Amino acid sequence: MKKLCLVIFLLGMFTYAQTADESQLRKIYDVSLTNAKGYDWLNHLSNQIGGRLSGSIQAQQAVDYTKAQLEKLGLDRVWLQPVMVPKWVRGTPEFAYFESTPGTSTNVPICALGGSVATQPGGLKANIIEVQGIEELKIIGREKIEGKIVFFNRPFDQKLISTFDAYAGCVDQRYMGAAEASKYGAVGIIVRSMSSRLDDLPHTGSMSYGDTPVKNRIPAAAISTKGADLLSTTLKLNSDTKFYFKQNCEQLEDVKSYNVIGEIKGSTHPNEIMVVGGHLDSWDLGDGSHDDGAGCVQSMEVLRLLKETGYKPKRTIRVVLFMNEENGLRGGNEYAKVAKSKGEHHVFALESDAGGFTPRGFSLDCSDANFEKVQSWKALFEPYLIHMFVRGQSGADINPLKNSEMLLAGLRPDLQRYFDHHHAANDTFEHVNKRELQMGAATMASLVYLVDKYGVEPSIKIKG
Amino acid sequence: MKKLCLVIFLLGMFTYAQTADESQLRKIYDVSLTNAKGYDWLNHLSNQIGGRLSGSIQAQQAVDYTKAQLEKLGLDRVWLQPVMVPKWVRGTPEFAYFESTPGTSTNVPICALGGSVATQPGGLKANIIEVQGIEELKIIGREKIEGKIVFFNRPFDQKLISTFDAYAGCVDQRYMGAAEASKYGAVGIIVRSMSSRLDDLPHTGSMSYGDTPVKNRIPAAAISTKGADLLSTTLKLNSDTKFYFKQNCEQLEDVKSYNVIGEIKGSTHPNEIMVVGGHLDSWDLGDGSHDDGAGCVQSMEVLRLLKETGYKPKRTIRVVLFMNEENGLRGGNEYAKVAKSKGEHHVFALESDAGGFTPRGFSLDCSDANFEKVQSWKALFEPYLIHMFVRGQSGADINPLKNSEMLLAGLRPDLQRYFDHHHAANDTFEHVNKRELQMGAATMASLVYLVDKYGVEPSIKIKG
Repeated sequence: MKKLCLVIFLLGMFTYAQTADESQLRKIYDVSLTNAKGYDWLNHLSNQIGGRLSGSIQAQQAVDYTKAQLEKLGLDRVWLQPVMVPKWVRGTPEFAYFESTPGTSTNVPICALGGSVATQPGGLKANIIEVQGIEELKIIGREKIEGKIVFFNRPFDQKLISTFDAYAGCVDQRYMGAAEASKYGAVGIIVRSMSSRLDDLPHTGSMSYGDTPVKNRIPAAAISTKGADLLSTTLKLNSDTKFYFKQNCEQLEDVKSYNVIGEIKGSTHPNEIMVVGGHLDSWDLGDGSHDDGAGCVQSMEVLRLLKETGYKPKRTIRVVLFMNEENGLRGGNEYAKVAKSKGEHHVFALESDAGGFTPRGFSLDCSDANFEKVQSWKALFEPYLIHMFVRGQSGADINPLKNSEMLLAGLRPDLQRYFDHHHAANDTFEHVNKRELQMGAATMASLVYLVDKYGVEPSIKIKG
Repeated sequence: MKKLCLVIFLLGMFTYAQTADESQLRKIYDVSLTNAKGYDWLNHLSNQIGGRLSGSIQAQQAVDYTKAQLEKLGLDRVWLQPVMVPKWVRGTPEFAYFESTPGTSTNVPICALGGSVATQPGGLKANIIEVQGIEELKIIGREKIEGKIVFFNRPFDQKLISTFDAYAGCVDQRYMGAAEASKYGAVGIIVRSMSSRLDDLPHTGSMSYGDTPVKNRIPAAAISTKGADLLSTTLKLNSDTKFYFKQNCEQLEDVKSYNVIGEIKGSTHPNEIMVVGGHLDSWDLGDGSHDDGAGCVQSMEVLRLLKETGYKPKRTIRVVLFMNEENGLRGGNEYAKVAKSKGEHHVFALESDAGGFTPRGFSLDCSDANFEKVQSWKALFEPYLIHMFVRGQSGADINPLKNSEMLLAGLRPDLQRYFDHHHAANDTFEHVNKRELQMGAATMASLVYLVDKYGVEPSIKIKG
């Protein structure tokens, strides 16, 4: 009889807990959808400030603005964490054309890759040779590459349902193309834009010269996907086509910038820290609405939604708006470094950096025990059409925090449109839908609530 | 031993069948994503033809174009099914303003509701009274309504995750508002646009005068959501505000139009018919890309994808592009009537009429046995992030076919953005994403393939 009573009691507890969780999630979504702040914050970041490249005036304005907004939320503490960041500037707009038949030229849309050197002031003109990837350089050999511009033209694999997988399958051309091509005597590179779409917009993004000596560094630019197709067709008709481009971008000295941080102190486990964040910097061509203004305002919303719904976290919940994800990851690295030096105990981190589209779920980077724990909450998310709880990378900015105990997560929004906008001039506010953005914020806040309430599982120590 | 062999054999069959299905779905998605036709067809329907209101020249052009395209696919048969449709014309653009303080007027964006009568040639000016729904008319009473314009202003409930539920909770104001308000002596109605968004676009849509005598019919228009908020605020400050609007729309005589039909004859069960369709007509303010050009080209794609992947259906697969869903449903009713009169045996119908956004799954209107059968295919759809298999309505055009034996289904795309565009000037091609549209077509073709291969479950006859 006693046992039966206990069972009934426990069942009752379980039902109560379920109901309390259901009710808390409902409250979070209700506030997010009817009394939104994130969308207005994003409007300001995008339309009043604009693109926020590290070291720019706009990046500083974004630091000031988000700090002031966090201060208005009545958090326990808001502060700036200094970090030195690279400062690369695009300069005047780039210009490019190709000449296939003498005396005629065809303009094509290009943009310098972030971190690239400039061309000579008068521009660079040379024969151009198309390759489908870095591995082809070796096959073709120095003789045919020397003195030429290399045109990397491997497109996204449209068969991949995940556009992130398609991106991952191409982005080496952008990131390493210049360093590799210069080894074969190339004088510049042009890369097909990292995009799912066929259009006229070039997509910028970071690149690295690796250990290429300064004097051997060659200029690198992205060409629109339509421009790439046109150029490729032209080269098939006339391999003697010449390509001209001009860009006067420049890498300046590092400058001081900041991560913006705010926190609600935990009521019972204040030393266990849970981070939620996005990155405040963005590329300069658009206004960085999807990448990653959306992730920033959603992360700010998480703390506001918990407050507005009257939830008092047991653990310390911290929003971190990281600086310089795009071309250096200095903010993410600095945050992890400071955390380590202070002996802070981080148990959880969640990043949103895949656009402000309809949320579908989370990718989780954690132990089996924590993965199972999150899976057990699936039913709570069902009414909100959240269905993906998969293993995968969490986010670039929170990754430096990683250890065997932590639960790392990344918001997974619907991803079909993301690379239409990513790093291009059309990453702008009007392509963010208010309900989709706010659903994402609520989905993040719901996970934070559940992890705070039920804690993370301790890691299993393997005996040495 | 024999039994064991049989089990192993059956397991082998099962594994083989799974693999064959997995491979067929993969082929369907591959073709849809890499060798698309639907997006190009939609480009033509939207940008070369435009809005396709029943009885318009554009509707006829759409009939001719889609018939010609279906003929190019090498189907077994393509034909037009005649149907008489209502012809309502908008006339010159509508115009509206309100006067709160004498001598000043504020313009607001409106559009006539489909089926509305015109105002007098000089327009209609009267005091305006705001209500939150039809039920309020009775409470307010004739005295306060007579001679006035009624302003129906109940907004979408943003808490509802399904925007279709939010729409369903408001649309009675648009559909029945004029008929009901005229009973209390109202001289016209203005309805808040059926939209999830706050913007300047009025959204049209069908309305009915019910059994209101012709002489008592009052003009009805939709106002943009921002206009509605402005008007509501103004009325709170000054209840004596006057509203003026002018529209010269007109209901003409019925005209002849067509459903466009194409089919692949079934190899072993040619008399079992499976229908896939959308509606070819659209409202006139935009170009009808999402509603329902998307559904039409996706349905056409289903037959093309099955052909391109070399699948020979056992049953007859028919694409039907229905005419006049928006303001009459004549095409859907006629199709069902002809099917019945010919004694055709329809076993399955699938409609896409919820926008060309990322597909999430299906709503199913069928017996328990068929519902379970479709559920059993869930795992096959997982790689394509298709996760919703829920009970619900299928589609307005296929609903007249309904009987206890049939499996009816509706494609369920992501729905957060749909009512931003629905029936408004921004339902246009650039808001359709190619990958999302083609994923939807592949998802539909996959379900058609599975139902064709495994058949529908016979209905259980209840003894009389």
